[in-house]
Amino acid sequence: MANIKDVAKKAGVSVTTVSRTMNNRGYISKDTRKKIEEAIKELDYQPNQIARALFKKHSYVLGVIVPDLSHPFFAELINFIEAFASDRNYKILVCNSLQDAEKEKEYLDMLRQHRADGLIMCSHSLNVDAYRKVQMPIVSFDRIISSSIPYVASDNYRGGVMATKHLINKNCHRLLHISGPLTSDLLANRRADAFRETCAKFGIDYKIIEGAYVKATFEDNWNFIKNEVAPHLREFDGVFCSNDIIAYTLYVFASKAKIRIPEQLKIVGYDYHNFTRMLKYPILTTIKQPIDQIGKKLCALLIDQIENVSADNYVFDVQLIEGETT
Amino acid sequence: MANIKDVAKKAGVSVTTVSRTMNNRGYISKDTRKKIEEAIKELDYQPNQIARALFKKHSYVLGVIVPDLSHPFFAELINFIEAFASDRNYKILVCNSLQDAEKEKEYLDMLRQHRADGLIMCSHSLNVDAYRKVQMPIVSFDRIISSSIPYVASDNYRGGVMATKHLINKNCHRLLHISGPLTSDLLANRRADAFRETCAKFGIDYKIIEGAYVKATFEDNWNFIKNEVAPHLREFDGVFCSNDIIAYTLYVFASKAKIRIPEQLKIVGYDYHNFTRMLKYPILTTIKQPIDQIGKKLCALLIDQIENVSADNYVFDVQLIEGETT
Repeated sequence: MANIKDVAKKAGVSVTTVSRTMNNRGYISKDTRKKIEEAIKELDYQPNQIARALFKKHSYVLGVIVPDLSHPFFAELINFIEAFASDRNYKILVCNSLQDAEKEKEYLDMLRQHRADGLIMCSHSLNVDAYRKVQMPIVSFDRIISSSIPYVASDNYRGGVMATKHLINKNCHRLLHISGPLTSDLLANRRADAFRETCAKFGIDYKIIEGAYVKATFEDNWNFIKNEVAPHLREFDGVFCSNDIIAYTLYVFASKAKIRIPEQLKIVGYDYHNFTRMLKYPILTTIKQPIDQIGKKLCALLIDQIENVSADNYVFDVQLIEGETT
Repeated sequence: MANIKDVAKKAGVSVTTVSRTMNNRGYISKDTRKKIEEAIKELDYQPNQIARALFKKHSYVLGVIVPDLSHPFFAELINFIEAFASDRNYKILVCNSLQDAEKEKEYLDMLRQHRADGLIMCSHSLNVDAYRKVQMPIVSFDRIISSSIPYVASDNYRGGVMATKHLINKNCHRLLHISGPLTSDLLANRRADAFRETCAKFGIDYKIIEGAYVKATFEDNWNFIKNEVAPHLREFDGVFCSNDIIAYTLYVFASKAKIRIPEQLKIVGYDYHNFTRMLKYPILTTIKQPIDQIGKKLCALLIDQIENVSADNYVFDVQLIEGETT
């Protein structure tokens, strides 16, 4: 493999001149720069980024921690994060935490050891202490880690109000919300707050069933519905689900139980990711999060911090997509 | 941040002893090792992996190039690759090529600069020359790059035979295959070979419509079907689709055109990823690729090469999943 000396020799200049050119330091004539660029190209010279990172303390690598890559929401989010990072010349290291706090801790250590420039944290695991200690720029998705770490979210409270009001406007009188696990500090739980407060405001009977940490599979969601939701299902005429996968599974479950949708039971989901957009039987009524914009903003806020620009929290608006289930 | 000197001081040993312990060189007593390990833990000492990589030429980072992370097949494959890499203490850098050969080239340069230990190549882009020149261990998915680069695939030919025979056994007489783009050297194109040869063997009329590079969205697949497939659709009573997303889109298209499935038209897909497994209206008949095993084998073959074990091609068996569309 060619090294910097080979480049200097080929271009007929000193190693220092090559180095100064590559690092944009000091004056270099157009002519010299052109000769050096040609030599680099001809020799296919690859500067050793490891050595440069050691010197410059800049690796152009971003770590991304997600709870489950096989979940369509996070697959799509990673897709957009990668695209926007790549536009700004950064690469991403992906960690699939699967709610394993130990694995996340190891990954954080690894990122520090590799001198990653920053971290996008989308984890759902319970222990956030480890993140507060990380000495690198961080941005989190849908979660408040500390007052000094900016977060990006969509407007979960407004989404919860929209979903609940939509069911009330469709003449539902007894409402159920299947939330996410409420014990953690996820901003997504504002959806449940909005549901509770909107029902109270309109004098509507309601119940909240707390979701479990289940995998994004039909079977896991089916078992949850069968065990936790089914015994109560006929008490309600409208259900607001905290994500589209449980909404779809509930649709299938209710249909097989001969409950007519939307006549007897109306269902609203949340997310509007790939799976929901692809689905045509039924077309789900749901709350759309702008996943592309969330991915772009997470990248932008992180890179701003890396490049010493201060970064603020950012909350995106959401949108009601009316389908056939309400 | 604590450095190696702080660790040595705290443990009451020399820097050389700490270094020897961390690199497993020479004899270190149990007692000394314990003291050093405790000091490392107490001081939360993170050895600088950049400096170590420079010395050891080993970064424990694997590059992975996929054509489209938002495609459920590749999202799931990445999910398994990450899990198995993590089990063996490797991390993954993900590149979403989106068929952009220029982006792939830049990414390859970046991996060389960062001294990645190896590369899993799942790209569909046309130019594979760049990969032949990469001076690091590679394994490819479903693609022959060169005789010295091992590949992992599922048995595409057998999958094609199974799908075609299934349609013939279900009394189809005029068969259509919607293939992938046939110009590239993807092993997935063996499905079309198998279709052609199986139809010929059984004396069945057939036609192949070549697929286009479309995104994994309902709209893109719908437009392709509307423009390329619809004018011929009523000539056939069975269709073998080269992936589940086009099979599902075709099901929706045919249903809206009042073609009864499976009575008038039978449809077989290919893949059986997350989306297909979640789908209940309809349950697709399809050919299952073992995505978990493919991910595991890709990792294993790459790490074998990195650790100087020779690696061979590996072809997995496939399985017919009979649903409601045939």
